[in-house]
Amino acid sequence: MDINNILDDYKEGRIDKERAIRKIKLLAVKELENLCLDISRKIRKDIPEIILAEGKTNEDVIRASMTILEENNHVIISRANKQLANIIIEQFKDLAKASYYEKGRVISIRKEELKELKEPPIAIVTAGTADVKVAEEARAVVNELGFKTICCYDVGIAGLQRVFLAVKKCIEENAEVAIVVAGMEGALPSVFSSLFPGIVIGVPSSVGYGYGGGGVAALMAMLQSCTPGMVIVNIDNGVGAAVAAVLISRLKSL
Amino acid sequence: MDINNILDDYKEGRIDKERAIRKIKLLAVKELENLCLDISRKIRKDIPEIILAEGKTNEDVIRASMTILEENNHVIISRANKQLANIIIEQFKDLAKASYYEKGRVISIRKEELKELKEPPIAIVTAGTADVKVAEEARAVVNELGFKTICCYDVGIAGLQRVFLAVKKCIEENAEVAIVVAGMEGALPSVFSSLFPGIVIGVPSSVGYGYGGGGVAALMAMLQSCTPGMVIVNIDNGVGAAVAAVLISRLKSL
Amino acid sequence: MDINNILDDYKEGRIDKERAIRKIKLLAVKELENLCLDISRKIRKDIPEIILAEGKTNEDVIRASMTILEENNHVIISRANKQLANIIIEQFKDLAKASYYEKGRVISIRKEELKELKEPPIAIVTAGTADVKVAEEARAVVNELGFKTICCYDVGIAGLQRVFLAVKKCIEENAEVAIVVAGMEGALPSVFSSLFPGIVIGVPSSVGYGYGGGGVAALMAMLQSCTPGMVIVNIDNGVGAAVAAVLISRLKSL
Amino acid sequence: MDINNILDDYKEGRIDKERAIRKIKLLAVKELENLCLDISRKIRKDIPEIILAEGKTNEDVIRASMTILEENNHVIISRANKQLANIIIEQFKDLAKASYYEKGRVISIRKEELKELKEPPIAIVTAGTADVKVAEEARAVVNELGFKTICCYDVGIAGLQRVFLAVKKCIEENAEVAIVVAGMEGALPSVFSSLFPGIVIGVPSSVGYGYGGGGVAALMAMLQSCTPGMVIVNIDNGVGAAVAAVLISRLKSL
Amino acid sequence: MDINNILDDYKEGRIDKERAIRKIKLLAVKELENLCLDISRKIRKDIPEIILAEGKTNEDVIRASMTILEENNHVIISRANKQLANIIIEQFKDLAKASYYEKGRVISIRKEELKELKEPPIAIVTAGTADVKVAEEARAVVNELGFKTICCYDVGIAGLQRVFLAVKKCIEENAEVAIVVAGMEGALPSVFSSLFPGIVIGVPSSVGYGYGGGGVAALMAMLQSCTPGMVIVNIDNGVGAAVAAVLISRLKSL
Amino acid sequence: MDINNILDDYKEGRIDKERAIRKIKLLAVKELENLCLDISRKIRKDIPEIILAEGKTNEDVIRASMTILEENNHVIISRANKQLANIIIEQFKDLAKASYYEKGRVISIRKEELKELKEPPIAIVTAGTADVKVAEEARAVVNELGFKTICCYDVGIAGLQRVFLAVKKCIEENAEVAIVVAGMEGALPSVFSSLFPGIVIGVPSSVGYGYGGGGVAALMAMLQSCTPGMVIVNIDNGVGAAVAAVLISRLKSL
Amino acid sequence: MDINNILDDYKEGRIDKERAIRKIKLLAVKELENLCLDISRKIRKDIPEIILAEGKTNEDVIRASMTILEENNHVIISRANKQLANIIIEQFKDLAKASYYEKGRVISIRKEELKELKEPPIAIVTAGTADVKVAEEARAVVNELGFKTICCYDVGIAGLQRVFLAVKKCIEENAEVAIVVAGMEGALPSVFSSLFPGIVIGVPSSVGYGYGGGGVAALMAMLQSCTPGMVIVNIDNGVGAAVAAVLISRLKSL
Amino acid sequence: MDINNILDDYKEGRIDKERAIRKIKLLAVKELENLCLDISRKIRKDIPEIILAEGKTNEDVIRASMTILEENNHVIISRANKQLANIIIEQFKDLAKASYYEKGRVISIRKEELKELKEPPIAIVTAGTADVKVAEEARAVVNELGFKTICCYDVGIAGLQRVFLAVKKCIEENAEVAIVVAGMEGALPSVFSSLFPGIVIGVPSSVGYGYGGGGVAALMAMLQSCTPGMVIVNIDNGVGAAVAAVLISRLKSL
Repeated sequence: MDINNILDDYKEGRIDKERAIRKIKLLAVKELENLCLDISRKIRKDIPEIILAEGKTNEDVIRASMTILEENNHVIISRANKQLANIIIEQFKDLAKASYYEKGRVISIRKEELKELKEPPIAIVTAGTADVKVAEEARAVVNELGFKTICCYDVGIAGLQRVFLAVKKCIEENAEVAIVVAGMEGALPSVFSSLFPGIVIGVPSSVGYGYGGGGVAALMAMLQSCTPGMVIVNIDNGVGAAVAAVLISRLKSL
Repeated sequence: MDINNILDDYKEGRIDKERAIRKIKLLAVKELENLCLDISRKIRKDIPEIILAEGKTNEDVIRASMTILEENNHVIISRANKQLANIIIEQFKDLAKASYYEKGRVISIRKEELKELKEPPIAIVTAGTADVKVAEEARAVVNELGFKTICCYDVGIAGLQRVFLAVKKCIEENAEVAIVVAGMEGALPSVFSSLFPGIVIGVPSSVGYGYGGGGVAALMAMLQSCTPGMVIVNIDNGVGAAVAAVLISRLKSL
Repeated sequence: MDINNILDDYKEGRIDKERAIRKIKLLAVKELENLCLDISRKIRKDIPEIILAEGKTNEDVIRASMTILEENNHVIISRANKQLANIIIEQFKDLAKASYYEKGRVISIRKEELKELKEPPIAIVTAGTADVKVAEEARAVVNELGFKTICCYDVGIAGLQRVFLAVKKCIEENAEVAIVVAGMEGALPSVFSSLFPGIVIGVPSSVGYGYGGGGVAALMAMLQSCTPGMVIVNIDNGVGAAVAAVLISRLKSL
Repeated sequence: MDINNILDDYKEGRIDKERAIRKIKLLAVKELENLCLDISRKIRKDIPEIILAEGKTNEDVIRASMTILEENNHVIISRANKQLANIIIEQFKDLAKASYYEKGRVISIRKEELKELKEPPIAIVTAGTADVKVAEEARAVVNELGFKTICCYDVGIAGLQRVFLAVKKCIEENAEVAIVVAGMEGALPSVFSSLFPGIVIGVPSSVGYGYGGGGVAALMAMLQSCTPGMVIVNIDNGVGAAVAAVLISRLKSL
Repeated sequence: MDINNILDDYKEGRIDKERAIRKIKLLAVKELENLCLDISRKIRKDIPEIILAEGKTNEDVIRASMTILEENNHVIISRANKQLANIIIEQFKDLAKASYYEKGRVISIRKEELKELKEPPIAIVTAGTADVKVAEEARAVVNELGFKTICCYDVGIAGLQRVFLAVKKCIEENAEVAIVVAGMEGALPSVFSSLFPGIVIGVPSSVGYGYGGGGVAALMAMLQSCTPGMVIVNIDNGVGAAVAAVLISRLKSL
Repeated sequence: MDINNILDDYKEGRIDKERAIRKIKLLAVKELENLCLDISRKIRKDIPEIILAEGKTNEDVIRASMTILEENNHVIISRANKQLANIIIEQFKDLAKASYYEKGRVISIRKEELKELKEPPIAIVTAGTADVKVAEEARAVVNELGFKTICCYDVGIAGLQRVFLAVKKCIEENAEVAIVVAGMEGALPSVFSSLFPGIVIGVPSSVGYGYGGGGVAALMAMLQSCTPGMVIVNIDNGVGAAVAAVLISRLKSL
Repeated sequence: MDINNILDDYKEGRIDKERAIRKIKLLAVKELENLCLDISRKIRKDIPEIILAEGKTNEDVIRASMTILEENNHVIISRANKQLANIIIEQFKDLAKASYYEKGRVISIRKEELKELKEPPIAIVTAGTADVKVAEEARAVVNELGFKTICCYDVGIAGLQRVFLAVKKCIEENAEVAIVVAGMEGALPSVFSSLFPGIVIGVPSSVGYGYGGGGVAALMAMLQSCTPGMVIVNIDNGVGAAVAAVLISRLKSL
Repeated sequence: MDINNILDDYKEGRIDKERAIRKIKLLAVKELENLCLDISRKIRKDIPEIILAEGKTNEDVIRASMTILEENNHVIISRANKQLANIIIEQFKDLAKASYYEKGRVISIRKEELKELKEPPIAIVTAGTADVKVAEEARAVVNELGFKTICCYDVGIAGLQRVFLAVKKCIEENAEVAIVVAGMEGALPSVFSSLFPGIVIGVPSSVGYGYGGGGVAALMAMLQSCTPGMVIVNIDNGVGAAVAAVLISRLKSL
């Protein structure tokens, strides 16, 4: 039922004026709701719903996923442990294909196949081994959102040549956005950004003990960076960095 | 003198082998230095030097500007008061053209004219009147780095229709990057980002008193945003947001 | 023994003057104590004692409940796990009726039946699934204190239309007080309050990781809210919000 | 132009179907905007705009006031010094009547006279002399929003009898909402609330030096209060407390 | 060997002058060491060593206790669980008598019997049931250091009459020092101190969740107390409060 | 009018029973108020009112002093500058004698002469020259509350012999309570307390810059002191330390 | 292949000019990489790689160790539990000798024997038993980096004579660098440094509960130390202190 | 009077035994005092007294300087403004030579000429122009304590080649200790230390605004540095870094 039909029905006398008005008003309300839905995240940004599993029961996560998949083709679950992944792969097998990125603790449930990953690739760089968990979360999400990735892990500033090599690799492979994860003193994103011509998204990771541990020193250092043009997301927020990187990368192909 | 000449000189006997080797080695060192210079920020990112005037004497700022202009065509000075602007406009008048963005407290000194501003325009949005200072800093820098801007000021979440209108305007004018400045509870960037299809750079501003005042609540709220894909810079860092927005916008035209 | 009797006794010579004075003074002290009791919370506010089970042993909680029930008809226990609930239901079965609100982790022990719930209903709104625990604590307490509730869960600002629908529902059902629970950036209470004509009690919930996690960003954001007229209670304090909402709602019927 | 006319025009052939559809769609958009306007704060909550003068230039404040008064009858300015008040009283004298509450630093500009203040009166209580500034801000706003006030200042817990007297006075004069301002250890709202049958809105004030000074200890203490049913606003936020108290008091007369 | 003997030996020719000087110098060094020992805590303050068991292995605690008991008659162990207590009671049974204060988690090991407890009694007051753990630690240490105690537990400010009764009891039983333990908003010590003529030692306890939880609000509130003459120790530091109370109480009997 | 009269009046028929009961009840209320007044700070602790001048206008301070002196013989004003002192000395000259302790910024206004200072003297010790301001505030208050003082200033731990000499002096002059003021690392109270047989009240002072500056490091260090039996007051709270020291010292002479 | 050969090849016509230039350029890049490697930490500082096991899986640690040992003779692993140590001792037994310092939780894997430890010895001093864990980590690393150690444990400032004895011992054994570990109030490094002629490296340890617990008070106190010339590392950072002490001690023998 | 005389006097009967014992005991006390003086800072560390002028009146600073110069040849005053310098140069001109380091705000007063500065030179490196103030304080103190300095200012990590050049210069000039000052993200000391073979003392400077401003981010980053072997002093503590650098450098020449 759309305005077209209502107008037809009215003109041709199948409904009277009052009824036509009411129907149009309902349509307006519906349209408002549609408009709201229309400006809802899924449609506008073309980013699927991403559920944070942490702090939710398995039941909550599964029910939420079900609800989303009723009207969407894709849902992502972050901070998911293996047990949850196995349950979901099993439970959704008739409906959709669920895959688990174990290192990044990300589950992706799709009704349709993931298409070939697009260029430009998004670089994902870490300072130390302990940052890999966050980096892998970002990588999984970037890939699931359709972009290629280049990974350069363990590029601490204590060995500057590793930084040079990573920057070189990223430039050579045409990366234009880099997600740089670092804990402890969090200096890698600044140093990297001073060498890399594209945009750098810094992600503090909750590595390190003592004063400024848990990612706080890294967060502060990135916010204070004297290399302008670097932006950041919250501590350990691999998902947020990935979505931002994808939104930026899409500009290229618009 | 380049490798070409050295090789010629050597083959034709004008220099001996030892001397050829030394010359090539010097060239390598020179090249290393050049490479270092080459990967220096100015050249790679094509972002001019930006001097933070705050906490420096006028003399320091002027001397630094002079030094930079010796080898560059453009320098930007942020957090500059009017008095400093007047001194600089006067002192540099034979060398370059300095202009002062009073609301944004930004001085730009150029040897060459600024070219016509490029598209896509960068949206600059503020929650309240008190955030305008930061927004104007961002606007000045974005314009000086060559991009158009669309400004939507005073778009607080207390009147949601103003948010809708601002989003609509930004979409209609084809903005793909939005710098959203907010103090107090800092919710505007999240709300805006939930409606805006492009990338949002949140800038907490040091507005508000009491617990979480001075921009801390806004910073935290933006870092905690449940709208994925938003990135942020530090409190009041209009310059940083502007540079990031420009780096992102350039991707489009690459 | 009251003043009446003392006066009679004295006038009729059953006691002498000194003894009458002493008896009256004792009565005054007694009266002071009574006055103190009289202005004690139970009587004035007509809010039963609420025991926080967290950090107490089961024995402590049970003993405290027993003591209170000796002189009262109702006691509420918050942050109670199921095991404690089962023990209490069993132990108190001859004395009173204990019921357990599992999601809200609230036990209510009553000697008398709960009367029909009163209007206006109190709205309870949450931003995300993870806030439900706090919301359910509030709901249980509001119901046990005699008021109806309307629940709108999972109304995050990332999908503004859900906020509109929730506000509409609350207005339609004549809610005049809304308890709005939100973690992460804590923007929902502000947005809700900008649309809802009644009073909003914001409850930060300890959701979210990274900087500002654990409810701190939400607390700050609510305190900094630029929507005047919103009040708050501490992080996760569903009980406090419920009691405040009930005290406010009673004004209506006074 | 409404749906009625469009339908008539269409049926009677004055406009074609495509044009009818477009007109109806525009109407829907218009309706959305109207809906937005309709749910805007001014109309729903019947609270005038309140401008925070702090951190704005006099020019900013005056321009904002002008804009608001174009479409409204009332605007309030908080944190206004005497100089600003004098300028505004002078500048607006032809348009409206501005009055200045000097102790509370509040300016009220009205096109219409303030009606007689309503009951129930709102109690305003302070712990010390230094809290009076915040209390007077609250008092000015409560009065300007149409309610009576009862003021009990300098009621510190160091002299408990003063607390008793204040509670007694508030009860006797039928106050049902009390705004209680306290700095330093911030215990007064808790003690007051344990004695007062109505609802207490605690306002921490930025009094006190050393650890926990500037209102932080008071804020924390109020959030931690073991007297359930107390709600709070941010440090020094007299305006917020006043608006909340008025919203609550209106319930009574609904 | 003392100076007396050396002088005798020298005068009577049993040792020569050089040897006498060397012996006296050694004596001086010894005396210096003795003086150091002499001004060591044990002797001067007459407070036995108190070992914090928390964060140490059972072996560490036992070895430390052994070492101390070699030269002392008494050692106290705080934060000791029951298992450690049982081991110590068993292991030390031939050497000394160990007793365990279960609620206060304190072990006392003595070679000599504890004498009759002295007056004036030290009052120990708590705001809530959850503070009892800290109070019992203080009580155990006060008793083991030789003083009587009066305990008034669960004296929250939400029921002021309980505070009055507690103060009355403390005054009637001649307490001149009161240890007042409170978590959450930490107001009890201030209120108590405003009523109690003696000195109050406030002990914040790590009770309460949300902002200011874990004792921080209570600590701040006590430091900000507007009741002059109250002193405090750190969060949960029952031992420190007990030792201070005993040092103060001894002044009376000097 | 007392109970005696009421009883007489009643027995002899001058008043009827109802009136007798009402009169007795009023008497009870009056008694309650008297009881409240009776337990007010002034009477119980025999500590005069102490007004904090900081953050108050001169007018506020003078008015408060006047009010207090109407019913008391003594009032103390802390944090008072010289200008205020001069005004007060002049204004109160007919009523009372005001004296100004310039270094400690304390004004004392007395209707009666201060009696001879009592023993035991209270020791006041500082770590550095910059702590003297706080120490002098404490000294002024201690003297005005009737006790002698011994001052040992500039006793930093960087020169331990100065600590020894200070402890020796304090012991020799029979001090039993020591107020020890220290900023920066705040170690002096701990070291002093490890050598001094009496009770030590630590006062952190707001000396020092950088991390932990402004007295925070000193406050923390004193709270963490491993020398049991030390108590503290807030940063720069010389008044609080003085009152506590006096309350403790009075025990001796009770 | 070096420049020599390229020149020969070119002169003798085995390669053409273009190829010669390309080969030389590649050589330059290679040289840059070598230069980078050359200034890498391992070679310059002669400190082996130190892996933090905490927060890594056993597999991660073992793989990292393997990689390092391919090109180095020595690797150190800190924060290693016994289980990991046993696995490593077993797995590496054919390749290298792994030893485990249990108290310090340090594994050292060496292909060559550790040479005789060098002088001057590095002093390692702790305030309490609970600091020993950190001290032992430092001791293990110092020894593995080739220097002798002198350990003085349990030297709290509560017994100053123990401090004197420790300083005396350190001076007598010619220590010139002292690592001083302290938790709680963290005063020992300041006191020690005021007596010790050499350089003191303070290490806050995460001992202590309540406000300033977990090493924060100790960190602040050390940063605020009024004994100039003391430097510090982060809380519990025994490794960092050890490496710094070794770098300083090597200066002596240069 | 020494032991020798006392023994003679006693043997020959000029004093009796009791008096001999008392005299010897006094001698022991005297010896203790001497011992204390002997281990005082001045003598052991050979570092002159350094007075922090900040927060002291000119009179306080001058009096303290006078007192120190009575028994010493050298005193240093830090954080001294020009006005104080001029007063001191004038007042002390007959007694000693005072010189003022204007950029570093350091006054040095000497009775004897400063000898030729010693090697190895101490490197002083800064990240930005705003750090120079702290660096110059360190330079002044290092020079006044007798060591040469090499200054490399404005070596930010945003231009890595400047870091390389600075490290090269420091190595070439044989520096073995480097004081590296940085504000904002504080990464320079880590990067520098990863390239410099000697020991690095990091000094956070109070540069930067927003979250982590005022030196806090820099402090945290340095404490979290993943380059082992770096030590730090507090924010802006140029004096502390200088003294530490000198103590370390002296080891070389011992």
